[in-house]
Amino acid sequence: MNTEEIPITFNAQHSPIGAFASFTLGYPGAKGGLAIASGMPADQHLYIGLETPDGQYETFPFYGASGDQAEQFSASAEWKPSDALLKPFEISRVRRDYGLTTDTWRAGDITFSVISPVKSIPDPDKSSAQELRSVLLPAVYVQVTVDNTGGTSARRAFFGYQSRQDARREDAMYHLQHHTDGQLVGFGQGQHLAVVSCNNGKQVVAANGFSVEKILCVNHTENWNFALGQCSLMLMDTPPGKKKTYTFALCFYQGGNVTTGLLAQYYYTRFWSDIWQVAAYAVQHAESIIQSWKVPDHAQLFEHAKLSSHQRFQLIHAIHSYYGSTELLLSDGRPIWIVNEGEYRMMNTSDLMLDHVFFETLFNPWTVRNTLDFYLERYSYVDRVFFPGQFDRLYPGGLSFTHDQGMSNAFSRKGYSAYESVQLTDCFSYMTQEELTNWILTAAVYIERSKDKAWARQRLEVLKQCFESMLHRDHPDPAKRNGLMSLDSDRTMGGSEITTYDSLDPSLAQARENTYIGGKCWASYVLLSKLFGELGESELAQHAQQQAIRSATSITAGIMAEKGYIPAILDTQHEARIIPAIEALIYPFMAGVPEAVDLEGPYGDYVSTLKTHLLHILVKDVCLFPDGGWKLSSTSINSWLSKIYLNQYIARAILNLPWDASGHASDVAHVQWLTNGSNAYWAWSDQMYAGVPKGSLYYPRGVTAILWCFEQ
Amino acid sequence: MNTEEIPITFNAQHSPIGAFASFTLGYPGAKGGLAIASGMPADQHLYIGLETPDGQYETFPFYGASGDQAEQFSASAEWKPSDALLKPFEISRVRRDYGLTTDTWRAGDITFSVISPVKSIPDPDKSSAQELRSVLLPAVYVQVTVDNTGGTSARRAFFGYQSRQDARREDAMYHLQHHTDGQLVGFGQGQHLAVVSCNNGKQVVAANGFSVEKILCVNHTENWNFALGQCSLMLMDTPPGKKKTYTFALCFYQGGNVTTGLLAQYYYTRFWSDIWQVAAYAVQHAESIIQSWKVPDHAQLFEHAKLSSHQRFQLIHAIHSYYGSTELLLSDGRPIWIVNEGEYRMMNTSDLMLDHVFFETLFNPWTVRNTLDFYLERYSYVDRVFFPGQFDRLYPGGLSFTHDQGMSNAFSRKGYSAYESVQLTDCFSYMTQEELTNWILTAAVYIERSKDKAWARQRLEVLKQCFESMLHRDHPDPAKRNGLMSLDSDRTMGGSEITTYDSLDPSLAQARENTYIGGKCWASYVLLSKLFGELGESELAQHAQQQAIRSATSITAGIMAEKGYIPAILDTQHEARIIPAIEALIYPFMAGVPEAVDLEGPYGDYVSTLKTHLLHILVKDVCLFPDGGWKLSSTSINSWLSKIYLNQYIARAILNLPWDASGHASDVAHVQWLTNGSNAYWAWSDQMYAGVPKGSLYYPRGVTAILWCFEQ
Repeated sequence: MNTEEIPITFNAQHSPIGAFASFTLGYPGAKGGLAIASGMPADQHLYIGLETPDGQYETFPFYGASGDQAEQFSASAEWKPSDALLKPFEISRVRRDYGLTTDTWRAGDITFSVISPVKSIPDPDKSSAQELRSVLLPAVYVQVTVDNTGGTSARRAFFGYQSRQDARREDAMYHLQHHTDGQLVGFGQGQHLAVVSCNNGKQVVAANGFSVEKILCVNHTENWNFALGQCSLMLMDTPPGKKKTYTFALCFYQGGNVTTGLLAQYYYTRFWSDIWQVAAYAVQHAESIIQSWKVPDHAQLFEHAKLSSHQRFQLIHAIHSYYGSTELLLSDGRPIWIVNEGEYRMMNTSDLMLDHVFFETLFNPWTVRNTLDFYLERYSYVDRVFFPGQFDRLYPGGLSFTHDQGMSNAFSRKGYSAYESVQLTDCFSYMTQEELTNWILTAAVYIERSKDKAWARQRLEVLKQCFESMLHRDHPDPAKRNGLMSLDSDRTMGGSEITTYDSLDPSLAQARENTYIGGKCWASYVLLSKLFGELGESELAQHAQQQAIRSATSITAGIMAEKGYIPAILDTQHEARIIPAIEALIYPFMAGVPEAVDLEGPYGDYVSTLKTHLLHILVKDVCLFPDGGWKLSSTSINSWLSKIYLNQYIARAILNLPWDASGHASDVAHVQWLTNGSNAYWAWSDQMYAGVPKGSLYYPRGVTAILWCFEQ
Repeated sequence: MNTEEIPITFNAQHSPIGAFASFTLGYPGAKGGLAIASGMPADQHLYIGLETPDGQYETFPFYGASGDQAEQFSASAEWKPSDALLKPFEISRVRRDYGLTTDTWRAGDITFSVISPVKSIPDPDKSSAQELRSVLLPAVYVQVTVDNTGGTSARRAFFGYQSRQDARREDAMYHLQHHTDGQLVGFGQGQHLAVVSCNNGKQVVAANGFSVEKILCVNHTENWNFALGQCSLMLMDTPPGKKKTYTFALCFYQGGNVTTGLLAQYYYTRFWSDIWQVAAYAVQHAESIIQSWKVPDHAQLFEHAKLSSHQRFQLIHAIHSYYGSTELLLSDGRPIWIVNEGEYRMMNTSDLMLDHVFFETLFNPWTVRNTLDFYLERYSYVDRVFFPGQFDRLYPGGLSFTHDQGMSNAFSRKGYSAYESVQLTDCFSYMTQEELTNWILTAAVYIERSKDKAWARQRLEVLKQCFESMLHRDHPDPAKRNGLMSLDSDRTMGGSEITTYDSLDPSLAQARENTYIGGKCWASYVLLSKLFGELGESELAQHAQQQAIRSATSITAGIMAEKGYIPAILDTQHEARIIPAIEALIYPFMAGVPEAVDLEGPYGDYVSTLKTHLLHILVKDVCLFPDGGWKLSSTSINSWLSKIYLNQYIARAILNLPWDASGHASDVAHVQWLTNGSNAYWAWSDQMYAGVPKGSLYYPRGVTAILWCFEQ
């Protein structure tokens, strides 16, 4: 295979918006399927196939060797299907078109498509139920098209699944028509999953059995009602000479309270009180919803974006996984927007909030405001701070925010994250300084891009507290401030704060005097200055600007002239060279102060020093992997795609790096990281260890790539 | 080990009544734990241990090698606990007292007990909420007693668990005190599980972490609030010189509709609207409930029963697993009693209903009536019948009942079971004749033992329909009736009916002319005659008696004088010799017509022929396994313990077989079947293949052994 060719056998998440659900498909074997609130694929056997003229069935290869459950019931129930009743298509015969809203597989005479929404979520406080329903419907659609125009007899196609788990642990699969007096044709599993036919009439029947072979070779169709098996299929017979499309809605539902710590329900429970209502709605409105979903919101932006095929693939792939982690809840009458952290399932993790802000302010800025307010209300705290080694001497600190809001549908206690622990200096320590900048920067981007001045005014006092808190972390003595973080939070109980790059490298673990955190402090001051100015607080604006200058000056001074780069920890000879030193340039650029990142602007020295730094390190064996992929730190093999996307954009759009062969090679390498071999099981993943995803799997954060659409 | 010694390392189910939940414990490794609606153990790591003076922890061995979940989060988060922080007790140092309501483990200075209810369930239609609450509370209690009277320093004990599944698929574990503003001390998982301390004050703390080692070696107790790990422990420090008991309630909850086909909730949701209410109630009433639960209902009966240790063990073990399958539902304001079929999770399977009738009429006869009525209302049908090979010529059939009412919380469609399929002659075919006798026999036992004459009168018309249906299955021509089944139901669509012994042996598969089914027909006629007589229908009574005589005569005539046994299929030379030929003797005996089974009574010839049959076959290599265990059919190695228990009782109490060395040897063998090696994982199981459980695992049916308590 051409190394530039993008393989097709990767899992993609197809998800409703805000239902924390995914129909995952594309990796061979029993590696996809339907799941709710899972940080990984369902690992069901998916059966999609079409009868051949000789009575076998050609299939897409999304199932494994399935133990026949009949053996559990009776030693005498052994039953051998004809050999190779199912024949998977050779992959070389399969074509996949993986789009933003439609993922289509073609082979032989069968076409299989999945349609999922990429839509702005209307602000629930300002929208009608009708507007919300078609965006929040907890379902995705699939379409099976059978071309039997050349056939001489009817051919049977099927679509369905068999459970991953031991059937002893699962709700039974059952016929929807039995439950709904024939109103719905399809099958369900418990209260939570349903596959329903959107075609009228009797073109489609549902069948249940111990295995796909037992269903297809059943001795009498009455026995499709057999209800002990955990395999269910939709069966479609297409007459000779005909081409037909069969549409199904794959529905997800979880009723009642789904969270602990703070009680909340899925927001969609406002509109549908059970999965059968979801299914009925999905059937009734199938045509209009599919039509609407096929065109993403901001379609023009996506269409006109100048993206290479590798960039386009990564952007699309990232958006698919982002939606798989989204969860819109309803607590005490109020919407709560959650983005879960992929496999980790931490909720609204602060550093992800900031990375998602570009995507979310484009699609639904209100979700950003919702998260900011929820942080303020429940996940903020006021601390004191101390100099290293002097935990016995505390100084006033200030307002900050927690690392996250809980994990796996358990909201953490008020004022505390699930993640942060005390007396540590490494992974799982506090990130007080960084979370503070995250809130400021997210708020600034939100205010600028949403033009929500009312909210800005409303939050002025909070912004003032944030500013004070920033200052206190710099130095208790105003005369000694350098614009950087020098004191740790007493929340660490004598430990030291770390950064969001917790697992990357010691160079990025320490928050104090950290170049990356320094950049975020600089950006925070720049934007606080801008916001204070707009809000009529000119004195504060000046003060913040003074701090921004201090930050910039301190970091600029940090460059080691003889070596050509800024050490990751300032005032050290730290050998690590890190790309994220440039990361914070994005915030002034996106939040209405583009002059701050101009090479000729007020912080020109700073910006050009960062450019010097980047050009120095963005070379093979330093911050490029042998395959050309970006290496965030010269001393770690762990590199994060979401951050690479962000920094790529900064390099091009702000620092004017040309996207030459080296740039293109990095895109090709990153696609390979996502799609090589077993990497492809995890859909979009973030933490890549020398090109192999080993952390932050099945992850939402890659939507930083939305920035690429803004490039001219 | 002495072969007569009962091993202690077997799983036992400890279950609330009617919550379809189990805390399973006793098999080494991560093989027990808390589960709802599961046909198998939860496979969690259970941690129960006590600190030693040298700072290690001695534990009961209910956990396995647990991957430390921290590795998922960070390659740099590796952390090695001191070697062998946990040391499992040698099994030889552990003592287990396994009782009906209390299962106690002792080793070193720690004692661990589980307390679960064996109580009559009050009839919901006639009882107060207060009466129902203490029986239906969806919780079991555990007590950890630490004897530190000889200690010189405080010693820490712990109790808790770590999830089986990949944490990505599970609800998070969390601190109850965070969710309940400190009202409850303990931990929970999602909405469905909670472990709560019943001790007042601060003697007990809850701790969460990636692993038991990380919790025990935590650098600061604040970090017990860490919320990413899926391991939670309760920690108890006992001062030197003290002996203390710590009590915990293990709570289960599932809210909302839990079934499909017919919507129903757990009945307990009437009293508690979430798991925290359950936990609060369990704490508040811990003392009185434990006191009440420690004494089983019908304690006198159990105490005075003349049981060997092997009999006692099997009875207790069977009752534990029975409760694990019980599920009291509420549908449209009305209680529905379900006993699930262990690993198979079929609901209220008709042949189990009949086997449970002796236990249930002792404890709560109303549940039997509830199931009979539900069968009548939703799971009965009227068929036609046909002679073998003549499906084109149908005769009137009559009323009968389905094999079951659904599976895995999916009620099957009205009038149909989950199990029965058409055009079969083996496993999964219809059992129309047998289900008809099951309903008649269950009703007769219920009426006799509950003295519910009002219900009998109310159901007279149904009994008449049943009788007519029986007759039609014998022969359309009254003159040609022989008291046996000769026609199959048209529900089979040309197949043939089977018996409940579906997977045992071809001799028990065919229902027509079957000796075992013949016996059930005889008993049905005997009891219909009795009921008709009591209800003033003397003509019908006589007619039924006539049929009973025909059945008895036909079967008696079947004995092959030269061979000394009755063939399994009458009128054949079938070589299978089956113990269940005698099975139906139990019904007249238990339903008020003991004279019918008297060797000198009206059916004396029949009864003595059965005794001859039994004595002939109950010998080594015929119906005894080499180890002395009972072999239900001479031609199958599959033997069912529930039925063995039943037939053992019949042999002793009705046929007056002495319980000599051979009888005792069979009890010892049956205990070994249940407890040998990996057999012991499945708690009580039914289908034993040469002493190895391979079907009907984790099963409720063994409560047929309750009959042993009735022996003089």
